[in-house]
Parts: sequence; structure tokens; C-alpha cells
Amino acid sequence: MSNEQELGITESKEYSPGDWYAEVVQKAELADYAPMGGFIVTRPRGYALWEGIQDHLDGWFKDTGSQNAYFPALIPESYLERESDIVEGFDPEVAWVTQGGHDELEERLAFRPTSESIITPFMSEWVRSHRDLPLRLNQWCSVIRWEATETKPFFRTKEFLWQEGHTAHETEEEAWDETMLRLDQYERLMEEVLAIPVMRGRKPAHDKFPGAHTTTSIEALMPDGKSVQSATSHYLGQGFAEAYDLVFTDADEEDRVAHTTSWGLSWRSLGALIMTHSDDQGFVCPPAIAPEQVVVVPIWQEDNREEVLDYAEDVAEDLESAGIRVELDDRDERNPGFKFNEWELKGVPVRFEIGPNEVEDEEVTVVHRPDGESVTEDRDDIAETTRDHFDAVFDKLYEAAEQNLEENVREAYEVPQILGTIGQHGGYVKTPWCGDEACETVVKDEIAAEIVMVPLDRDEEPIGEECAVCGDEAEETAYFAKSY
Amino acid sequence: MSNEQELGITESKEYSPGDWYAEVVQKAELADYAPMGGFIVTRPRGYALWEGIQDHLDGWFKDTGSQNAYFPALIPESYLERESDIVEGFDPEVAWVTQGGHDELEERLAFRPTSESIITPFMSEWVRSHRDLPLRLNQWCSVIRWEATETKPFFRTKEFLWQEGHTAHETEEEAWDETMLRLDQYERLMEEVLAIPVMRGRKPAHDKFPGAHTTTSIEALMPDGKSVQSATSHYLGQGFAEAYDLVFTDADEEDRVAHTTSWGLSWRSLGALIMTHSDDQGFVCPPAIAPEQVVVVPIWQEDNREEVLDYAEDVAEDLESAGIRVELDDRDERNPGFKFNEWELKGVPVRFEIGPNEVEDEEVTVVHRPDGESVTEDRDDIAETTRDHFDAVFDKLYEAAEQNLEENVREAYEVPQILGTIGQHGGYVKTPWCGDEACETVVKDEIAAEIVMVPLDRDEEPIGEECAVCGDEAEETAYFAKSY
Repeated sequence: MSNEQELGITESKEYSPGDWYAEVVQKAELADYAPMGGFIVTRPRGYALWEGIQDHLDGWFKDTGSQNAYFPALIPESYLERESDIVEGFDPEVAWVTQGGHDELEERLAFRPTSESIITPFMSEWVRSHRDLPLRLNQWCSVIRWEATETKPFFRTKEFLWQEGHTAHETEEEAWDETMLRLDQYERLMEEVLAIPVMRGRKPAHDKFPGAHTTTSIEALMPDGKSVQSATSHYLGQGFAEAYDLVFTDADEEDRVAHTTSWGLSWRSLGALIMTHSDDQGFVCPPAIAPEQVVVVPIWQEDNREEVLDYAEDVAEDLESAGIRVELDDRDERNPGFKFNEWELKGVPVRFEIGPNEVEDEEVTVVHRPDGESVTEDRDDIAETTRDHFDAVFDKLYEAAEQNLEENVREAYEVPQILGTIGQHGGYVKTPWCGDEACETVVKDEIAAEIVMVPLDRDEEPIGEECAVCGDEAEETAYFAKSY
Repeated sequence: MSNEQELGITESKEYSPGDWYAEVVQKAELADYAPMGGFIVTRPRGYALWEGIQDHLDGWFKDTGSQNAYFPALIPESYLERESDIVEGFDPEVAWVTQGGHDELEERLAFRPTSESIITPFMSEWVRSHRDLPLRLNQWCSVIRWEATETKPFFRTKEFLWQEGHTAHETEEEAWDETMLRLDQYERLMEEVLAIPVMRGRKPAHDKFPGAHTTTSIEALMPDGKSVQSATSHYLGQGFAEAYDLVFTDADEEDRVAHTTSWGLSWRSLGALIMTHSDDQGFVCPPAIAPEQVVVVPIWQEDNREEVLDYAEDVAEDLESAGIRVELDDRDERNPGFKFNEWELKGVPVRFEIGPNEVEDEEVTVVHRPDGESVTEDRDDIAETTRDHFDAVFDKLYEAAEQNLEENVREAYEVPQILGTIGQHGGYVKTPWCGDEACETVVKDEIAAEIVMVPLDRDEEPIGEECAVCGDEAEETAYFAKSY
């Protein structure tokens, strides 16, 4: 009995979100901690979510001209050093391979922290004329950034899974359009697949990707009031192309330096998914990405076991042939209540309950994971009805997250107000800002909140005339928040 | 002009197979050499082939109970050391991470050479009772083995892409069935998708996977007479389970040690694909896995450009809506001859030629890549007709490879005969063998051929009574071959 109780979530999302999150991740069998600090093991149920994200995003990438490739996991130190911002930005967090077999290597090799410095030189090899542009490459891989912080599965890990796109273009305008195209696709993934509304923005100059001209990102607000940077899309300008000699001949036979972009979405998006929707019963997952979209739980007595089970199997088969991912839980050794709890913990978005009444009335009882709402539906056209329920579950999840976001964007015009608002409510605080990092530091030192974004549009007027911190002329509106 | 000639293959498959292979790989844009010896860059056309292999194999794995997961790329040295055969087998070829950021690590971390030593301990965590078995995990990832040999893309590289499956079972019989199931799936991939007939066998005891009870493999014969080990499937016995404490409670509440397997297919299968079918015009690819299955080349004069192009577009659209991967090459700046050569080089299995005659007669000229056979087909039902051509192209490729295999398995009963046969013909030489590694060494030292397999069935009678090398009693039939 004590064993069975331990299966459930014991921590509270509201009162101890950190412990609660760790418990959901482990008990829903999404991930485990590896023996080395900072590393995790992604279990099949967690990896299936990542595969779901891949399926969506990879299809969109390919439909919009990007091709997958694979570059070495190890990058020579001399390659990293060719772009000075990259080496300065990443050097403190590189894992170095220094020995191969029993020999010391002549040159250290970095486990890729990001691949601009190995991909751009090859783009340079492959691009001769403007006819070879645009060139759009993407790879799904893992990267390592050796940060010494507490491990938080999918949010803070030394090794993480991601995709990194790298493109080269003839003009700034095309490269900028590419940057926005990928940001749009990330936004679509978050909103339409993961049911998480996001904000789009630009990173302040001091927080750009090393070497980038502009870093854009999408930010999602977690229920505990912290922001998650879910993906970034960088317009790199011509700096990387210059450093790695990515030059092409234009239509007039002139040599020109290409404009490049890079863009990445990591498994932080998966962390955001888990944290946003889950509750004190466990993991909650939107239907589009759920490994099992429906669990069918037959409820029988000894005298009607066959009848109920046959009917349940039949229903499950209907869903399966309609392409719905369904699990029939016909285990004899577990009672229905146990099964309900287990599948709630594991995040199956829709449950079918089928007992003798459902069989007799040719019906199915349909229960929504997020709120337990229960409806009786006709057995006929059940697959189609189920899709409506998927939409309903999605809407419930999206609306709750949207409400959280809408209620938690506030304005402030002086430091105590910034501190007080974030301290009390979390969320985003918009404030007029002069653009100086020192003014961010004032807030950061007090309350560990930072400027997570400024508006994408550089011409947007700031919400006030004076910087809330120093009182100098405000250049733009800063969004302060605590963040993961 | 000289530039255009350089696009084509200049080496001969028959007379300089090594240079020819390297040229095909690079000019068909499958891969390039990375700056660090032993590493390659897999270009989009090469990676698409790997994705094709993944699509097939991953579906079969999932249909047969295997789930994907992701384990860390780095493994602590102390974990590797827990299974003594693994550490002895792989220690000489491990790439070691010794520094994280600016700090020396307390313990070296191995870039995974294979993942038994990190996966088995977690299986041990997750398995409590016989109800948790079988447990079947797979991951798609890269591994590094620091071997100092000449780089040969997809055949010999320090880092390579593969999948590694790891399973645990209650009994030896179940684990053995699993080992065979995966070998079957590899065979199916090679034969039905890649059009390469293979032989199944067992590795001699001295060439097993470190720590394995039995290593089985599939072997493909290349046109140059060398064998390629395309995939391996290991029955690991209970050694790994004992080393990593993978114990379960059986139905009688007794603790028992699990039986485990592991099985892997790497991008060597892709190397075998390129080497088997390609020719002096470039890459040749079976339709099932080709990035473009059909290229449509319109052939127009000034006065009929629109007419021909419209018809060609229409044909291409028909194929596309039928799910066929088609490329319409409507470039103005290239003539049809140039296009033919380019797509032959790149390995598109079927070419459509569409000129004014085809338009007038409502036909399509269909050309097979492997042998240039050309047939005129009706425009009606062209998608269906195309599938028949895919089958025909597949059959041509498979039959050529099958003939090569059938003609090159010979018998020999004494050392000079073994050496002479392999020296003259390459291929496999079957010979009675006592089972002693020393007898293999005699042959190996003379001609660099080794025992690539023995029959799967341990009870199969050897083809002669006396070992061809030492004259002692023969235990089994050895297949000698040179190999990649």
C-alpha cells in the first residue's frame, strides 16, 4: 500500500514548485538524474515528447527549404577561436576532449557548445555563387555547456538536446526574413502544439548570442511567475561570414560577403510544457504531442468481463484505425481506480471509461485529464467525437496558460515598483529603459530578475520618457522577469 | 568547360575502387572530410539517406516493442570499469573529456564508444519485477572510437552515427529470440530497402563484442571482393546484468539476474549502399531510399518551351500527389545533357525525359539509372507505372549484387588454397576450422583476410574433418574474407 501511494505526486505545484517539478518529471517517467551532475537520462516517455516536437518542427523546416545534415560533435579549438566573440562567449563553458585512447591530443577538441564555427567554414566551401544561396542547414543533436548550476531536467543540464539551424543569404533583408520565419515556426510550435502562448522579443544588446547582430527569442510565462526562453533565432549579420570566409560571387561577378542566421530550439520547450500544464496529480499533456492520446479503461465485474472487454477492444480499434494513439489498459492485476491514477500521473489527455452501462447504452464515458470533466458520448463516430475532445482539452490548457500570461504583464516606472511588483506577483514588468546594462544590474542585484526581452520593433516608442532606474532618456521598453 | 568536366567521376570503380569511392562520396555531395582526421561532415544528400534508413528501421523497432530514449553522451570512467571486458575492449579507443570550462574534471568522462555501461545501470533502477520485462530501449546517436586508421567516409571514421538497442529479458531463450529478431530486421533493411543481399553469421569467439556471450552479424560482399559487417546483434548473456546489478523478482518472488542483448546498425550500411550499386557515372540508389526518386527533365526548343514545361509540370504534380519524391529540373541555364549527367552523378534512380514528341503523343520517356534502359510509357496512370519502374530498378540492383555474392563464396581445404582463392577472387572462402585464433592468424599475416563469420547454427557440421590450417579436428566452418 505504501508503495502504491508513493506512485503519486506528494509535492505541491503552488507551494513548492521546484520539488513538485522534479517529482513530476521522475514519477511520470520522463527523465532521471544521471550519475554526473548536470546530466539526465531521457526515458522513453520523455523522449517520445521530444520526438513529437521533432515531427512537427522538422516537417515545417523541410517545407521551408531547410535540409538536415550532421557535423562532427567535436570542434578543434582553433576553429572556435576564429570568431572572437564565440570563443569569449563559450570558452568558460566548453567540455574539452584532450585524450584519444592512450594519447594526448595535439589540439584540444571542444564538444560542440553550438556549431557556427564548424558549419560556417563548410558553407564557405560549398557556396561559390549567388546561385548556391540561400543555403539552409539544420541538425538535431546534443550540445554541452559546462555550467555549474543545480540540475533541473530539461531546463538546466550540461548536455541538452536541440536543433540548430544555420543559413546563408545574399542580403540582410533575406537573412532577416529567415530569422523571423524561424521565430514564427517556434511560436507556432509553442502555441499550436504545446498549448503555451508566448511573447516574441529581442534580447538587449548585452545579452545577445556572442557575435550576433540581433538575437530574437520567444518567452513563455510559467505558472510560478518565471519566464522561460523557449527558443532563439539570431540574425548574425556578416561577422561570422567574414570570420569563416563565406563569400559568394553575385550576378555582376562581384565577390560579396554572405549574411547568416542561426536558430535553435532545445528541450527547454519540453520543460516549459511539463511545468505549464501539469498539476498535483502529475503530468498533463496536450493531445497533439501525447505519446498516448486516449487510454481506454474497461470496468468489469466477474460476470460481464468478456462483454465489457470486447466492447472496449472494439472502441480502441476504432480509434487506432482513425490514427489516434490509444492504449487499452486491460490489466487484470490492477483495479480501475489504480489505472485512473496511473494514467493521470502519466499525462494521457483523454480517458475512456467503459463499464456494463456504456456497453448496454452503446456509449462511452469520456473524461478530460486537465479538469476531470466527464461526458457521455455515443459509440457511433467515436473517433470523430474524440477529435472534438482533443480540441476541447487543448483549449482548456491554452486558455489557462493565456490567462496566466495576460494577468501577469504589468508596468512600473521606478525601481521600488519594479522590485515590488516582481516580488509580489512574478510575471513581466514593462518599464522604460535607457539601454544601459548597469541599470539592469541594479534590479538584478536586488531581486534576481533581468531584462528577458525588449520589443522586436526597434522603432516602438518606450512606455515612458525616462529610464525607470537612472532617469536618463528612455530608449526602449524593457521586460523584466525572473527566468529559468 | 574544364569545370564542368570536373563535376563527373574521373576514377574507375574497377581499377581504383578506393579513390573512386572517395570521389563518388564527395561529388555526389554525400559527405566531406572534416578538418580533424577521422571525422566527416554528412551533407544533406548523405544525411537524407540516413534519415531514410532511420524511417524504415525505427518503425520496425517500435512495432516490435522497442522504445527510443536518450542517455548521456559522456560516461564516467568508473562506470566503464564496472564491466571488465568492456573497459579492456574499448579503453584503447576512448575519447576522454578531462576539462570542463577552465577546470580539470575529478573523473575523466568517456565520449560514449557504446552505451551498455550507462544504460544497464538505469535498466537496473527501472526493473523491479518480471512484470517490468522485457525492457527494450533504443537510441539514435553518435559514438566515438579513437582508431588511428585512414578515414573512409561511412566505413572508417572516429565518430559515427548509429542506433544502439539494449534489452533485458527473463530468460536466455527470450533474449536469444530478441537477438535474432533484430538481426532479421537488419537483414530486411539491407535486402528489401538497400537492395543488398547479405549473409548471416556468428563471430568467432575471439572476435565477439567485449563481454558478449554471442555476437551475430550480417555481412555484405562488396564488388571489390571485400566483406562489410553491416550490423551486429549480441546476446550478452548475464555478464552485463551481473556487473550492473540488473536483477528482477520472478513470479515466485525469487531474485533472478536478467539476460540482456544489444544490437546496432551504423552508417557503414550507408557506405555499403554507396559502394555496392554506384558506378563510374556516380552514385546509384535504390528507389525506396532515394531523396529524389524521379527527376523530370523537360527538353524544349524556343518555340515550344511553354508547352513542354506545362506538360512536364503536370506530370511532376501527378507523381507528387501520389507520394512519389520528384524533382522537376526546369533550370534555364543548363542544357538537358548537363542535367542528365548531374542527376546520374547524384543517383536519382529514374529519369523522365519530356520533349515535344512526348507532349504530342501523350507519353513519357522513362530511363533507368543503373543501366540507362529507356522505355516510352503512356501519360495516363503515370504514377502507377512509375512504381513498376521502381520495382524494376530495385530488381536490377539486387540481382547484380546477388550474382556477385553467389559467385564469390568458395571452398578451400588448405592454406595455399585459401590464400590463392582470396588473392585471386576476393569474396568468401569457406574452410574447416579447429576454432583456434592462431590458425586465423596464419592466414591474416599472409593476406590480411580474417574469419568474418561462422555459421549461426552451432550444430552445423563443418565442411571438412580437419582444420585447413593446423590439421586438428575441425569444429566449424570458417568464412575467411578481406573486410572493411
